[in-house]
Amino acid sequence: MSRFFTDRLKSLEAYVPGEQPKDMKYIKLNTNESPFPPSPSVIEAAREEAGRLQLYSDPECTPLVAKFAELYGIDKESVIMTNGSDEVLNFAFMAFSDEKRPLAFPDITYGFYPVFARLNRIPYEEIPLKEDFTVDYRDYVGINKNIVIANPNAPTGMALSLDEIEEIIKSNPDNLVLIDEAYVDFGGESAILLTKKYRNLLVTGTFSKSRSLAGARLGFGIASPEIIRDLNTIKYSTNPYNVNRMTMMAGYSALVDNEYYMNNCKTVIENREYTAKELERLGFTVLPSKTNFVFAKSPDVGGEELYLKLKARGILVRHFKNARIKDFNRITIGTKSDMQSFISNVEEILKEKSK
Amino acid sequence: MSRFFTDRLKSLEAYVPGEQPKDMKYIKLNTNESPFPPSPSVIEAAREEAGRLQLYSDPECTPLVAKFAELYGIDKESVIMTNGSDEVLNFAFMAFSDEKRPLAFPDITYGFYPVFARLNRIPYEEIPLKEDFTVDYRDYVGINKNIVIANPNAPTGMALSLDEIEEIIKSNPDNLVLIDEAYVDFGGESAILLTKKYRNLLVTGTFSKSRSLAGARLGFGIASPEIIRDLNTIKYSTNPYNVNRMTMMAGYSALVDNEYYMNNCKTVIENREYTAKELERLGFTVLPSKTNFVFAKSPDVGGEELYLKLKARGILVRHFKNARIKDFNRITIGTKSDMQSFISNVEEILKEKSK
Repeated sequence: MSRFFTDRLKSLEAYVPGEQPKDMKYIKLNTNESPFPPSPSVIEAAREEAGRLQLYSDPECTPLVAKFAELYGIDKESVIMTNGSDEVLNFAFMAFSDEKRPLAFPDITYGFYPVFARLNRIPYEEIPLKEDFTVDYRDYVGINKNIVIANPNAPTGMALSLDEIEEIIKSNPDNLVLIDEAYVDFGGESAILLTKKYRNLLVTGTFSKSRSLAGARLGFGIASPEIIRDLNTIKYSTNPYNVNRMTMMAGYSALVDNEYYMNNCKTVIENREYTAKELERLGFTVLPSKTNFVFAKSPDVGGEELYLKLKARGILVRHFKNARIKDFNRITIGTKSDMQSFISNVEEILKEKSK
Repeated sequence: MSRFFTDRLKSLEAYVPGEQPKDMKYIKLNTNESPFPPSPSVIEAAREEAGRLQLYSDPECTPLVAKFAELYGIDKESVIMTNGSDEVLNFAFMAFSDEKRPLAFPDITYGFYPVFARLNRIPYEEIPLKEDFTVDYRDYVGINKNIVIANPNAPTGMALSLDEIEEIIKSNPDNLVLIDEAYVDFGGESAILLTKKYRNLLVTGTFSKSRSLAGARLGFGIASPEIIRDLNTIKYSTNPYNVNRMTMMAGYSALVDNEYYMNNCKTVIENREYTAKELERLGFTVLPSKTNFVFAKSPDVGGEELYLKLKARGILVRHFKNARIKDFNRITIGTKSDMQSFISNVEEILKEKSK
């Protein structure tokens, strides 16, 4: 730390992204990326723009926003595009919460929420998940705080129903409810259309998971036009040209090619069900997932031990040290052959242990 | 504004970027873009990455940072890459200034500085430029505030010498001095190597202007490793994957192709000298520019009037309403033929006026 660093951020602990080791080739099941490349026309659209990079990108992302609004059946004024969904999340924390409007979110959820809260000096309450790792929607009914819920939740993979989400929104009319739908395309129910009915709802999402664009950086927010205007005030006060030209056109084409991506999601769901069943056969507890990962623990091998042994065998999964979930690993769903390889390695590790 | 918007940002006025009209094709001399496309190998490098977008980008931008450090003769630990230089500027305002460490910058400069300051609740002093629009370095000697200076300055285009910059840095050892070198490659002297000598210096820059990558979004900061670590704390607390894969490799290739870009800068300088001379022939006052734009006023036509008449003729320049500079226009330097067309249109407008 330099002696110039501001006192108010001195205790800030940054988010730690999943490791991206460069020492050897791994089967990467640790950062919830898609195992499928972007569709050919998305690749082509990004390539087309590479020859025009001397010109600034369109701060309004006009064609992308228009296509998105059309696909989801909402108004263009209800959409903002950002440099990944981390950016829209940070904008939202900054715009709507403060000392007088504190936040609540689950104790086990996306690790970035407490980081954003501390960065923006927002008091927050972490509401414990139930014993079975579910979010109990009743814990959020009428609590008179701003609320952030990842639905489906990470790293558990478990989802609330749309009715439960609506109950939370309806019962906190004077607070903003943010539903982070990063993983919704793998079996969750989206609250996007509820933004037409409730002015206190902000839904965020990303092209990183279901739309194979993690490396392009594209996220979005959907809400009432007033809320979107507030988010734009933050965007135009930090980085108006936040989405680059190539990503903007890749995103546009990904929406045109929606079917390709929704089919990939189906394949991921099939591979997830295969993986869950195999892990259960090996004695694991597997939380019921609506995402592109499973969260699982074995009675026979510790979470960290399994993570390390898999890594030594060239397979990366994600382990969290938090006491409540330290027995688990979060395993991204890859191709069928990735998952077969993962399962046979787990099987071998368990066999070695039992010798 | 929604009723959820935080009180502390209610009075925030966002930055207004240069207009990007879509109604017709303009000669765009209003946002300081390069008139030259990226080099062929940069285009190719960006295209190559388009097929790998399902994977997250490298948060450390490893090859890009290594190449940058090599080209500029500094340590890798002294470099951070960001989503355009607006992002590194915002990170720096957030990291190093606060109620106890206020800021100073010129009254006429990049319009984003006051926006970043207000967003981060930083008290700031605007130090007036001299009558001739120069920054007087003596106004900043030993002032015991954090300092931000665009060198060369915008929209005037005028530069301080490296000796003057060093005097400012040396005389404020307990404050951070940020030198924003967005336009340095068009004739200014860079302070990058001074970061090895002074631990209170942060130099920022961008690939948007001299390196033809405005639409790719790539900026950077150079400073002591401690300062860079602080900036990384902010980056990892907001958006670790801030630079997308395509832009990272485009930036890398742009450094490999440095000669192509430095030759383009020479051409821009030639066209700038041509434009300045022609405007002077037409009676304009032209401030001596070290950038890819000129700032000029005519005794015969008002700044806003000239801007509007040029726009009606399909040529965009940038006009600012601020009282001190309202007689001027900022004219980006394009190709020789763009500038010839600009000059002959100005000439016609002046002729019409004198009828």
